[in-house]
Amino acid sequence: MTAITATTTSPSAPVPAWLDELVEALGAGSVLTDPDVTAAYARDQAMLAESGTPAAVVLPRSTDEVSAVLRIASAHGVPVVPRGAGSGLAGAANAIDGAITLVLTRMDAVLEVSTADRLAVVQPGVVNKALRDAVATDGLFYPPDPSSYDWCTIGGNLANNSGGLCCVKYGVTTDYVLGLEVVLADGRVLRTGRRTVKGVAGYDLARLFVGSEGTLGVITEATLSLRPAPKTPVTLVASFTTTAQTGQVVEAVVTSGLVPSLLEVMDRTCIRAVDDMLKADLDRDAHALLVAQSDAGGQAAVEEMEALAQLCRDAGADLVHVTDDAAEGDLLLTARRMALPALERLGTTLIDDVAVPRSRIAAFLDGCDAIAERCGLVIGVVGHAGDGNMHPTVVFDPTDDDQRTRAFQAFDDVLELGLSLGGTITGEHGEGNLKTDWLEREIGPVSLSVHQAVKAALDPQGLLNPGKMFRSATVSDLAGAASLR
Amino acid sequence: MTAITATTTSPSAPVPAWLDELVEALGAGSVLTDPDVTAAYARDQAMLAESGTPAAVVLPRSTDEVSAVLRIASAHGVPVVPRGAGSGLAGAANAIDGAITLVLTRMDAVLEVSTADRLAVVQPGVVNKALRDAVATDGLFYPPDPSSYDWCTIGGNLANNSGGLCCVKYGVTTDYVLGLEVVLADGRVLRTGRRTVKGVAGYDLARLFVGSEGTLGVITEATLSLRPAPKTPVTLVASFTTTAQTGQVVEAVVTSGLVPSLLEVMDRTCIRAVDDMLKADLDRDAHALLVAQSDAGGQAAVEEMEALAQLCRDAGADLVHVTDDAAEGDLLLTARRMALPALERLGTTLIDDVAVPRSRIAAFLDGCDAIAERCGLVIGVVGHAGDGNMHPTVVFDPTDDDQRTRAFQAFDDVLELGLSLGGTITGEHGEGNLKTDWLEREIGPVSLSVHQAVKAALDPQGLLNPGKMFRSATVSDLAGAASLR
Repeated sequence: MTAITATTTSPSAPVPAWLDELVEALGAGSVLTDPDVTAAYARDQAMLAESGTPAAVVLPRSTDEVSAVLRIASAHGVPVVPRGAGSGLAGAANAIDGAITLVLTRMDAVLEVSTADRLAVVQPGVVNKALRDAVATDGLFYPPDPSSYDWCTIGGNLANNSGGLCCVKYGVTTDYVLGLEVVLADGRVLRTGRRTVKGVAGYDLARLFVGSEGTLGVITEATLSLRPAPKTPVTLVASFTTTAQTGQVVEAVVTSGLVPSLLEVMDRTCIRAVDDMLKADLDRDAHALLVAQSDAGGQAAVEEMEALAQLCRDAGADLVHVTDDAAEGDLLLTARRMALPALERLGTTLIDDVAVPRSRIAAFLDGCDAIAERCGLVIGVVGHAGDGNMHPTVVFDPTDDDQRTRAFQAFDDVLELGLSLGGTITGEHGEGNLKTDWLEREIGPVSLSVHQAVKAALDPQGLLNPGKMFRSATVSDLAGAASLR
Repeated sequence: MTAITATTTSPSAPVPAWLDELVEALGAGSVLTDPDVTAAYARDQAMLAESGTPAAVVLPRSTDEVSAVLRIASAHGVPVVPRGAGSGLAGAANAIDGAITLVLTRMDAVLEVSTADRLAVVQPGVVNKALRDAVATDGLFYPPDPSSYDWCTIGGNLANNSGGLCCVKYGVTTDYVLGLEVVLADGRVLRTGRRTVKGVAGYDLARLFVGSEGTLGVITEATLSLRPAPKTPVTLVASFTTTAQTGQVVEAVVTSGLVPSLLEVMDRTCIRAVDDMLKADLDRDAHALLVAQSDAGGQAAVEEMEALAQLCRDAGADLVHVTDDAAEGDLLLTARRMALPALERLGTTLIDDVAVPRSRIAAFLDGCDAIAERCGLVIGVVGHAGDGNMHPTVVFDPTDDDQRTRAFQAFDDVLELGLSLGGTITGEHGEGNLKTDWLEREIGPVSLSVHQAVKAALDPQGLLNPGKMFRSATVSDLAGAASLR
């Protein structure tokens, strides 16, 4: 799947010159080549995505060192795979044979938290939760909260434009990016964006790098806007006879103008898997559970959740419960966050990541039921119902060839269903090397050629994470795009 | 200032072949060449920015017609200046000698308003206010509200990433862009983005086009997210002995975690100019006026404004008044919106557009006072205090050469001051052809070369609004950027 591979090093192979240069620039302790050691950096959490063997894993400690790595790589034509903690779910961080894997986890400083400007300046290796904790002491809040928030890094969040449970009210990573420092393919250091709330100087390059999965540059610093700490939430839980009813509730939320700070769904498969894992005393007989919160504060939050409770009853909820008990709310959120790990205990999982317009959620959930029935496999449905970003997750036994075939078919059928409803093949996980074909299908040939033109402008040698997101341009692509150039 | 000019047509000159092709494609009624008629489309509201004479003004009615215009223009190497109503304040829409001015005002349909998905699909010629009115009937809200909202078009708002009075709580235009249809330089039609709330498929090309001032493509359709209609606001007005005190209040708002829906400032020059124009019974003796609103609803809004009132008193306000009277609030807002038109009655104006970090607003306002004193001219200060985006406006007599020189010096001094405080040379007006040199100064050589590389990737002939935002790459630039390519 990768378009470019460099020479693979093996214990017997001669050491390439660029490896000496890396050691010279960063020190031997920052350049790992022992295959037993580098294997730990070979892949992310997309267990079924392709992965190669890195020639070297480098762990820079500064922007200057990242710059040195990219200067050396570009001089020698060696591909580079940037990565953080490796919590990704699409193989974007997966190693490429013979390439350098550039690990940013040692650059983990929170450089500044400004209450007066309500922003933070961080290095890419800062763990999401570490940033959240660092700003919370000043009464501030960094909203984007992917499920892996306690170990994923901000650099990976930026590269994937990560979402999370907060998106329904607070948006995604890109909505918090003010400025970036990026090392370009040739090692030059770009500073783009700003420290101000507003600013339109030049192109919005910062948001071009956000979500580009390491294919355009390596983010070495980010200036992120923060919000005031949210108020203690009021939590609602409601159970339903069908998952599709939860879609109806979301539509009603949108048309009624409610803005909950969280609105999540789990189906019975997930409920039971989580309950088995956490012994959380969940309602194991429910077919679907909706968990919502309002952080509007005090009486406003209670009113918002009471209004939602009525929408749930109108949609035929079996049970609706509203609580301002923070501990109970936390428990429900933990249960929701544990849905994917709990499903993974049932078998190998293929996690889909489709976002559909909110008016089509019920249709999408019905469609997922039909796909599960057709393929004869369990599909656990969990997702960010409030923003239409659902994660139907196929559970199967990978040692059973027939199940494996049906699982991949079901995975594709879910993507197909999402596109047919006006949705997207990825709401927050990205393409990595898992959905490159699907991306081309979603965006079409004109957009693909624009992607390739932008990529070629910023990474003319095609060395940055090649083969991720979309195919590199081939000779015939370039001929086809001749009219663009 | 423009890098490319095509053959200028004059009544006696032979009609260029491309003009025949335009008439063939769009019909004679959509292709204007009479200089007396085309002059009306020659410039925007930046009265002192350079402007040329268009060879033709074309007014397409559809994406297909825009595509035809760009195919013809690229085939013949004719530059194209896209524009909407011409409310811009930096000359981005100003005509280029011999170029085609492409006016999008006839494409003025609101194609869809979806309450279920809380979005609207619009053509670029829709007037901002027309969109606001169209969605208000469904209880929805399109926040970005530049001061010219009753005549500026959404296409221009997108091209400039316009802000307005709402930004302090609701952000700017780009925060509401889900998807775009863009005609590329060669006439191909790109659809990018989505209808879903979330989505990370491919690069964020939509936000690359937003704010690119027509230099990368022509936006022909936009899918915009909407919000629930805000609640009736509670309004606060406070008067101060110095403008800088208002900056202190803003800092206190940020650190205290208040999120007003509006927080605007006017100095005495503006107060008196507006009062002269509107007879609005403003406090003519105040040195600075802060106008704020909360749309948090009911008691929450009252509490938010009472908290702000206390911050104003703490900063030494002479007078603080909170009202839930909607008419009184509207009057104060109208007064604020009329500040620039009112200043224009005093003389020719040079409107600056600096955004500074909110912690530096007081220092910025003090600095503006010093500049006014140094240059011996009136500088009326008006601005979006809450987000640090200020519009110090130099008033002068353009027939007085000395005043003119001092006015331009003051304009530059304000930009210099903004940069020295960590700010940006443009918070919302853009560069147009007025601030190309300043943009280069702000972003630096590495970012400039990335801008030029992106521009070259999307517009290899350099025909789209050449010379706007930044200099096109020259041969020596390209040699200097050889390492990037």
